[in-house]
Amino acid sequence: MAQVQKPSIPKGTRDFTPEQMAGRNYIFDTVKSVFKKFGYKPIETPSMENLSTLLGKYGEEGDKLLFKVLNSGDAFSKISIQDFQMLIVGGGERASVASEQVSAGGESCNATPVINSNALSLKVCEKGLRYDLTVPFARYVVQHRSEITFPFKRYQIQPVWRADRPQKGRYREFYQCDVDVIGSRSLLNELELVQIVDEVFGIFGINVCIKINNRKILSGLAEVMGFPEKLVEITIAMDKIDKIGLEAVKEEMLSDGVDEKGFSILEPVLTFSGTAEEKLSLISNVVNDSETGRKGVDELKTLFDLIAKAGISQKVEVDLSLARGLNYYTGAIFEVKALDFAIGSICGGGRYDNLTGIFGLPDVSGVGISFGADRIYDVLLGLDKFPKEAIGGTKVLLSNMDEISAEYLLPLAQSLRKKGISCELYPDSAKLKKQFEYAEKNHIPFLVIAGETEVANNTVNIKNLETGNQTTVPLAEAPAFLS
Amino acid sequence: MAQVQKPSIPKGTRDFTPEQMAGRNYIFDTVKSVFKKFGYKPIETPSMENLSTLLGKYGEEGDKLLFKVLNSGDAFSKISIQDFQMLIVGGGERASVASEQVSAGGESCNATPVINSNALSLKVCEKGLRYDLTVPFARYVVQHRSEITFPFKRYQIQPVWRADRPQKGRYREFYQCDVDVIGSRSLLNELELVQIVDEVFGIFGINVCIKINNRKILSGLAEVMGFPEKLVEITIAMDKIDKIGLEAVKEEMLSDGVDEKGFSILEPVLTFSGTAEEKLSLISNVVNDSETGRKGVDELKTLFDLIAKAGISQKVEVDLSLARGLNYYTGAIFEVKALDFAIGSICGGGRYDNLTGIFGLPDVSGVGISFGADRIYDVLLGLDKFPKEAIGGTKVLLSNMDEISAEYLLPLAQSLRKKGISCELYPDSAKLKKQFEYAEKNHIPFLVIAGETEVANNTVNIKNLETGNQTTVPLAEAPAFLS
Repeated sequence: MAQVQKPSIPKGTRDFTPEQMAGRNYIFDTVKSVFKKFGYKPIETPSMENLSTLLGKYGEEGDKLLFKVLNSGDAFSKISIQDFQMLIVGGGERASVASEQVSAGGESCNATPVINSNALSLKVCEKGLRYDLTVPFARYVVQHRSEITFPFKRYQIQPVWRADRPQKGRYREFYQCDVDVIGSRSLLNELELVQIVDEVFGIFGINVCIKINNRKILSGLAEVMGFPEKLVEITIAMDKIDKIGLEAVKEEMLSDGVDEKGFSILEPVLTFSGTAEEKLSLISNVVNDSETGRKGVDELKTLFDLIAKAGISQKVEVDLSLARGLNYYTGAIFEVKALDFAIGSICGGGRYDNLTGIFGLPDVSGVGISFGADRIYDVLLGLDKFPKEAIGGTKVLLSNMDEISAEYLLPLAQSLRKKGISCELYPDSAKLKKQFEYAEKNHIPFLVIAGETEVANNTVNIKNLETGNQTTVPLAEAPAFLS
Repeated sequence: MAQVQKPSIPKGTRDFTPEQMAGRNYIFDTVKSVFKKFGYKPIETPSMENLSTLLGKYGEEGDKLLFKVLNSGDAFSKISIQDFQMLIVGGGERASVASEQVSAGGESCNATPVINSNALSLKVCEKGLRYDLTVPFARYVVQHRSEITFPFKRYQIQPVWRADRPQKGRYREFYQCDVDVIGSRSLLNELELVQIVDEVFGIFGINVCIKINNRKILSGLAEVMGFPEKLVEITIAMDKIDKIGLEAVKEEMLSDGVDEKGFSILEPVLTFSGTAEEKLSLISNVVNDSETGRKGVDELKTLFDLIAKAGISQKVEVDLSLARGLNYYTGAIFEVKALDFAIGSICGGGRYDNLTGIFGLPDVSGVGISFGADRIYDVLLGLDKFPKEAIGGTKVLLSNMDEISAEYLLPLAQSLRKKGISCELYPDSAKLKKQFEYAEKNHIPFLVIAGETEVANNTVNIKNLETGNQTTVPLAEAPAFLS
């Protein structure tokens, strides 16, 4: 412990200060209270999952973004030198046997031999950090199916890790906040999620638009376009329309192999604007030849009927261009945008029909949404919507003039806390100026002072630091005064 | 996503079910509310810290227990084949520098060549998972010192990871729950921590004994024993007295180089039983020749005076054999044991004078304690002390007989939630028996049924599943009835 280090944290990660934590806790406490009111229950899963659970679930790109954890103990000691040699690739004709490669570290004619990084990492890492909460949830449901009563309504608020290139608003560790119901196909679940979104953003005082579409409609569209096998490419391209515009989306689809005729069927759907009814009527005609498409339109209609009956305060709209990248969605898809603050979607999700299949439990349908805590934080901060009382801390600072004054005020601290008032006795006998500053910097509104006179008279001096008012009250009356 | 995997999680990690989460949240919410009342504020630090922040802070053993995270991207591709060759140790004449140690460790002439696992892991891992909350806190304080107003009172509740051998009650991922004040030497801080412990376990209804000692007394003891340089060995041996007994502790100390005469000074201190005053008087005599020892006795006396004045409900005692393993403690040390449940310590901590020194900020004194959430959970469960309301979930299940009945009950669900009553509308039109079972398994006390008759009469049937009582009330009166 000799040499001094300049402290820092890994790039893409963050410390959260008390002020930031107060805002974040307000967000988490709010969503939790709403989830609970709708009967959702919390679970938590380990930060580390077996890599076999995670690999292959997020596409090739996702696999690369997994943080792998080195096996504990001497991770490399179980690998023989021969194994290492086998992992060397490049270097011309050599590759298999050991000794030669050494000299091969070669300059001239042969490609420089390198280690097969991915293969080696899988030999020394069995675990990875959770990439999202969805796959661990699917794993949880399958592993605990015998003890779960379906439909299973759960929420989960935990950090996830992605080895993404850090940039503004994109972190390598961030919280996800997921709410799902699994084991029920009823559209009442979709309605419930819309109600939850409505209530959460109502409490936050953020005006949002809840955009809804259905993946079956997208499948139907791909069918009637004549390219059912290109559903993934079509949805990926569509998903970018807000960012890159219609022309670029068209270009991408054409380069993916969709033809002009196919795109001409899609184009009016992407550009149409109108009421939910008008949109549903349009899309109903377009996908009429696809059974899946008709099913999607039916589901969307039923959901909008339920929404109309339930009465949602926030804006809800059909967005036929909404695609959402994730391939596991099979029914309704949602996205929530803030209306008064420019930021990407702050909440999103959808229905999936076979998430648990890979873990051996097929045909369990579920639907869920995820709240983007970081973005919601930015919106609340940007719109100045954090309620003062939610982020407030200590209410009363009891000053410490000397040992006698401190011990004189000790029982008052206890009385205040008994009344639920958060208070601090300044621990050191310091200049009053210093204690004032401490109160100010910590936004503590009341300062209680007991100098010689107050101690002698069994009183205290209470200063309201917001108004500057100062009052002397009997010690015994201070708790009532400060309540 | 083709082949089916049997789902599992890494050994030493856990899933938390809704029932377990309810208990854990009760614990965390309780300690948080107490921390807040005493003016402590939350912070969070990243799960991953730079390995340079963590290594060397927990002793050699601790370094081995760190989980290392593989660098993202192709971790191994930056290592040349030559670098790899340099990391091979053993194999006779090969391996340039290392060769001698190798044959020394080896059997006959040539040991099998192996990779220097530790050196390689440091080449491919820059980050590690947090091992505790104390070192990250020290790092935080130094990194943020310009924005912190001292004394800084913070709490932090986050998971930590240790590559320990998993066994009953010992996990590789577990939560720590730390509360510290840093930047003040006042013993009022120690008192405050005792008050916090008192209040927390008071709320939990767990009877505890708060054991207190002072590391300066231990230093003084080592001095008067004649082995000041063996303080670490002496405290490590003492720390085991509860587990291995006096004789074994003596044996360990003698084998560490302490002589019989030295141990004879310590022995009466370890075996003495009496009141706090008697113990303080004994130890005051024993360490009288050591200035540090006298300072420790003074601090302990002052703290016990403060405790007597403040009035603590739980049992508090001087424990002169209490040592606590961690070397960074320099003043008061604490340990809390449950009196009515056999389990190790459920809370512990102490004062440290130079934790931030390694990060470039010397002479900042702090004191803190850590609550063992897993053990507290076990105690609450074992003593059946979890309050029913704290772990309760949904209060009302609205049954779903068919589409009409579901839509009939939808507005009632909204009214109940507006009143803060958590309720669920069963999403599928299922047999009533199934919905009954769902309510029972989820411990939902009220079931609301609306069959054809109820819908026609604008009423609902409310069944109390605990008592079996059933009542029909007008739909509009249901919210009041269920409040």
